[in-house]
Amino acid sequence: MNQYNQYEKTQPGHFYAIGVGPGSPDLLTLRAVALIRSADVIIAPRSRIAAKSLALETVQGLIDGQEVIDHVYAMTRDADSTIQSWAQVADRACERCSSGQSVVQITLGDPLIYSTSCYLLALVRETLAGECVHVVPGISAFQAAASLFDQPLTIQEDRMTLMPATDLARVEAALDHCETLVLYKAGKRIAEIADLLERRGLAGCAKLVCYAEQGGRQFTSSDLRAAAKTHHGYMATVLVHVGRRTWADNE
Amino acid sequence: MNQYNQYEKTQPGHFYAIGVGPGSPDLLTLRAVALIRSADVIIAPRSRIAAKSLALETVQGLIDGQEVIDHVYAMTRDADSTIQSWAQVADRACERCSSGQSVVQITLGDPLIYSTSCYLLALVRETLAGECVHVVPGISAFQAAASLFDQPLTIQEDRMTLMPATDLARVEAALDHCETLVLYKAGKRIAEIADLLERRGLAGCAKLVCYAEQGGRQFTSSDLRAAAKTHHGYMATVLVHVGRRTWADNE
Repeated sequence: MNQYNQYEKTQPGHFYAIGVGPGSPDLLTLRAVALIRSADVIIAPRSRIAAKSLALETVQGLIDGQEVIDHVYAMTRDADSTIQSWAQVADRACERCSSGQSVVQITLGDPLIYSTSCYLLALVRETLAGECVHVVPGISAFQAAASLFDQPLTIQEDRMTLMPATDLARVEAALDHCETLVLYKAGKRIAEIADLLERRGLAGCAKLVCYAEQGGRQFTSSDLRAAAKTHHGYMATVLVHVGRRTWADNE
Repeated sequence: MNQYNQYEKTQPGHFYAIGVGPGSPDLLTLRAVALIRSADVIIAPRSRIAAKSLALETVQGLIDGQEVIDHVYAMTRDADSTIQSWAQVADRACERCSSGQSVVQITLGDPLIYSTSCYLLALVRETLAGECVHVVPGISAFQAAASLFDQPLTIQEDRMTLMPATDLARVEAALDHCETLVLYKAGKRIAEIADLLERRGLAGCAKLVCYAEQGGRQFTSSDLRAAAKTHHGYMATVLVHVGRRTWADNE
């Protein structure tokens, strides 16, 4: 008996942006599993610098006859070339849907949180009817990172802000407006973030998690200063516990 | 063949806080399923006003011989009585762990995002060794809510802030510091939020989702003013698209 069969399958002509979670195959949802298994076509994005698609590796055990389109995109911060690159994939996805196939795009994490799915979704919605476009949420890296330390992201009246670590002035400003600050893409900025947190009296309040739930690559540290001495790559998340705001604070 | 069997099972003497997602059973992760099925004891929290535990309903199909402890807690905003209430459950959980059983606490959404798990985790960590305490992330309501509209939460340089809608002055302040604002527990404040967004020129920029992924109870609206005329209960999420910040804005 295959228990996955009880869940919703892909429908002909429909497009699904599916979050596969941070990397461990068992952090996929049952919905993602059932849809990926029943898809005709799977689009797996891969950056030009990556030898293989991490999203595809995550779902490798579910591939059995589906056509896999391995889309290589430029890791650029230029919006025009990013959209142009995705326009070609969107055309292929819509062609397949028009011919009655079901198409799934898999993406690490959640499709609506700093994901390439956002570009593809906007493009396929220009062609496909709204009811043929679906999003399946996935566990985002910050959730996996926080779970490794089992410390709350938010309780009671806390605010949590999630942002990229690209602009340190904006990161510093964010410290004044939340109780938990989550920084994505922190890999190149760990020393600067450590400086900032020391200056703000928050040196002991940060956790670094790189490649959360990506097997042997996973790295965690509560000491940003020490961790800054080695390179930690692209998928680095910093969780800053700025403070707490309780119910009593709101009275 | 049961494909769940390949995933990690609970270990004797260990405690697991497990997020079961927003309510649809197929938004559980494979990890959550395997751990819940193999647990000796399941603690299911239920507020005093709820006839049954929504978390327990979500995993009902996985209950087969586990002892279920239905913990009723007061829906109070008093920190002392909240912690006192959870202290009793923590004692029971630690007793069971000490006798070699595995104990799972299930919680709607993610255990580290506005969850009762945060109290229980802090308490069981006082007794159990760190390596015996685990957190399994779950899909939070804001992710399910955003998926229903398939619109990005964050792209490029966007900041997202998540907070409760209890204090409208703080909600207004947050609008100045993020591109996406997510408000939890918005049910009683929908009219006031509509007023605020109209005043700030953001009237058309908000989505309301109540009871996301909870079957027939699910309600969505892009018109807060109209939606405010009816009561929408406790589990109401408002997504406000304040603006976008692109790569070019950061140059």
